[in-house]
Amino acid sequence: MSRPATEDSKAIGPGEAGEARPRHQTAVWGGPRLRAAVPTYLLVVAVPALIAVALLLTAGESSQARTAGGAMAGDHGVQLFISVALVILAAELFGRVAVRLGQPMVVGEIFAGICLGPSVLGGLAPGMVSWLFPAELRPVLQGLADLGLVALMFCVGQETRHAPLKGQKRTAMAVAHAGIAGPFLGGVLLATFLYRDWAGPQANPVIFAMFLGSALSITAFPVLARILVERDMLRTMAGRMSMLCAAIADVVAWCLIAAMTAVAGRDTPTHAVITVVLVVVYGAAMATLGRRLLARLFAALEGRGDELRLLVLLAGLLLSAAATSAIGIHAIFGAFLYGLCCPTGALSKLTEQINVVSATLLLPFFFVGTGLRTDLWRSGFDLALAGVTALIVVVAMAGKVAGPVLMARASGLERHDAITVGVLLNTRGLTELVVLNLGLALGLLSDRLFVALVLMALITTAMTAPLLDLLKRSLPVTGPAGKSGRQASARRI
Amino acid sequence: MSRPATEDSKAIGPGEAGEARPRHQTAVWGGPRLRAAVPTYLLVVAVPALIAVALLLTAGESSQARTAGGAMAGDHGVQLFISVALVILAAELFGRVAVRLGQPMVVGEIFAGICLGPSVLGGLAPGMVSWLFPAELRPVLQGLADLGLVALMFCVGQETRHAPLKGQKRTAMAVAHAGIAGPFLGGVLLATFLYRDWAGPQANPVIFAMFLGSALSITAFPVLARILVERDMLRTMAGRMSMLCAAIADVVAWCLIAAMTAVAGRDTPTHAVITVVLVVVYGAAMATLGRRLLARLFAALEGRGDELRLLVLLAGLLLSAAATSAIGIHAIFGAFLYGLCCPTGALSKLTEQINVVSATLLLPFFFVGTGLRTDLWRSGFDLALAGVTALIVVVAMAGKVAGPVLMARASGLERHDAITVGVLLNTRGLTELVVLNLGLALGLLSDRLFVALVLMALITTAMTAPLLDLLKRSLPVTGPAGKSGRQASARRI
Repeated sequence: MSRPATEDSKAIGPGEAGEARPRHQTAVWGGPRLRAAVPTYLLVVAVPALIAVALLLTAGESSQARTAGGAMAGDHGVQLFISVALVILAAELFGRVAVRLGQPMVVGEIFAGICLGPSVLGGLAPGMVSWLFPAELRPVLQGLADLGLVALMFCVGQETRHAPLKGQKRTAMAVAHAGIAGPFLGGVLLATFLYRDWAGPQANPVIFAMFLGSALSITAFPVLARILVERDMLRTMAGRMSMLCAAIADVVAWCLIAAMTAVAGRDTPTHAVITVVLVVVYGAAMATLGRRLLARLFAALEGRGDELRLLVLLAGLLLSAAATSAIGIHAIFGAFLYGLCCPTGALSKLTEQINVVSATLLLPFFFVGTGLRTDLWRSGFDLALAGVTALIVVVAMAGKVAGPVLMARASGLERHDAITVGVLLNTRGLTELVVLNLGLALGLLSDRLFVALVLMALITTAMTAPLLDLLKRSLPVTGPAGKSGRQASARRI
Repeated sequence: MSRPATEDSKAIGPGEAGEARPRHQTAVWGGPRLRAAVPTYLLVVAVPALIAVALLLTAGESSQARTAGGAMAGDHGVQLFISVALVILAAELFGRVAVRLGQPMVVGEIFAGICLGPSVLGGLAPGMVSWLFPAELRPVLQGLADLGLVALMFCVGQETRHAPLKGQKRTAMAVAHAGIAGPFLGGVLLATFLYRDWAGPQANPVIFAMFLGSALSITAFPVLARILVERDMLRTMAGRMSMLCAAIADVVAWCLIAAMTAVAGRDTPTHAVITVVLVVVYGAAMATLGRRLLARLFAALEGRGDELRLLVLLAGLLLSAAATSAIGIHAIFGAFLYGLCCPTGALSKLTEQINVVSATLLLPFFFVGTGLRTDLWRSGFDLALAGVTALIVVVAMAGKVAGPVLMARASGLERHDAITVGVLLNTRGLTELVVLNLGLALGLLSDRLFVALVLMALITTAMTAPLLDLLKRSLPVTGPAGKSGRQASARRI
């Protein structure tokens, strides 16, 4: 009976299958088999199908129509998928255009976020923004943005740890300190002018001044690194020095911001003190015990498959983010700290994967979130706002460029290199937006001041590339060092 | 003046840096340089810092305490990060335990979802579930689950297209039809018993019967494929036949479910007809024009970098999901159709990446969402529920196994192979849960029936592996075909 098909029961390679088929088919559908197959088909397919249809038809006749205007699943399904597609595509498109224009990608991505928000799209088609991003969808977008931010801060922490901290440590320290002290003072001075009319509802003068000071002190480490890679400047004196300075400055600035967040919005001084103590304890524990445990953990997981290591890495990252969030400062601090404390070498491949996924698929939601909060129309873009924006840009630049340049010159750097370091440190990009969103969420910034500061971040980041070009043309590197400058220019993408 | 540092201005390789450093440092911090560096440090670091601190102190004295109980950023930040970490870790852990027990991973993942829900964790620590997954966080988890589902259905579509549709097409067609007709009739019969007490608020008899029929007809193509790979059965007769049948059956079953969704919850017959017409038009357009355009698009993007292709692929996927969602049937249909229409060969690497990310990081939220909706306590797990669950399991198994086995035998398959095909087609796993969640969202299922059906999905999936083992022991393959059975057993993981 079953002989004809037995051969097919053997393991069949793709090649053999072709030969086996015709014989098998004739055996089944032609000749003697047909007599068994067709009635069986009728019995197990046609008859049940007919009965089912008949049952459905009779059920339809007796239908008492319990249906009553269906509440469909996923009411915002359409918007979820369309807005996710739109956000990641817009970020990529604008980013690529920015790169074509000689700008870092992040300038385009920030711009994409602003364009999808009320300032541009809202101006062109007012209903569009609230249709694309309805209130019910905002938590989802915010959640994606938060996860992206945490991933970003982990990568920043890892890159900061990667920074070549060996050479020129003292010079870098001095220049980095200059790069914080200057803009911090600038921010504090600005705060005395701006506090009365521009501070947010939760601000008090000290916190507001500390916040503005720290916000102006930030350098966007990841953007800086990308600019240096794109211009092939990573190994030049100016490139190395600015990476070192940015690494040092960022750690200091984040500590300042963490301290400020710990104090801001606390009801009582006791509460603030407890928060600060917890932050210090957590930071110290991570830097000592956590660091060693993580190194051991990932050494033990070596060779156990990338998927498991990625999961453990992510789980630890999320828990560290949750820890600082539970303490009362933002999750980004826990993520940054975790990035600083994780071993770098063994995880560089995973970090790269996290970086790509977060940069392409998650961070666009952060940019759009920022864009949605940057409402030029509602905040009334008038002369006062323009003036304050200009003032902030000037103070931010002056603080970030003047001090480091003087300090670098005094430490023995060439004029060209010193100015290049200053210009590079002035890049604020993405990291600045993180700080600004934090300030807005804490109620330290008014909507108008938020807009001014976002514009400042965009302007200071966008000016880096043209300034570097200008510098190269107008102040060519003299002497033997000139070689590096010209080399870099030739190899530039 | 600047001679000593000039050498550092050249491009410095990592190796050279070590040698250059000591000379540079002495030049800067010892000897003549010190005189310039220290005063500059005082000027650009110490003085601004002191002024800033002084300003902050005076501002503190005049502080009118605008602070008033800060509304912190990210109120649910802690839960977001903790629950995300918990969900992905639990899914991985339970999945690995399931694999150890000889089960497919998905059985453990579904179980993890149920454990984190009200049925288990809620029973142990009632407050825990609502603390971990507060109502404010649910949209975020749901959004992640939706994105995971869409990614999954795309991968299922791609795998279905990958299925070796060349050999034994007719036999597979007949067996697949038997594998739908039987359980469909079973579901329709069940529906007549269950409609009065177990249907959801939006159900009418026809839709309810159609839904139960389609729900029982589903085979979990991805789970089936994974079981076959794990047991090294992909190239055996039973493995190839069951893959083919599952591919055919799934396309038919999804068409049925899409038709049902198009009709369910529509206010008027006209509305339902419009929806059906739109679905057919969209499906036909994608299968002809869309298919060709996608093939051309991805051929044109060949070699343009994986990132761009991934973005375009994802954007298209999301838009197709949005399209079916806008038409009025669930987004999963658009995703499945897109997966069927995208070219397979060129995208297999990207599909694999999407599959890994979605399986590890997104689908766990779907399982947890299902678990959160599966409330054994609130739905009162009594004898009636247990009885109905048992009844459903029996009907589902009988329909899925009996018909295909008879048909396969009649088409000439060996007894061992025919029964193996039946057992394999009985695997419902993940795909069944997708259908059940859809039914619950459409209001076709009561909470109690949802629980019973989820248990059925879990039981029929979990029984596949033991049944296959039993089959191998009790019904050894006879004759020359025996080789394949023993080979597979030896190579089994």
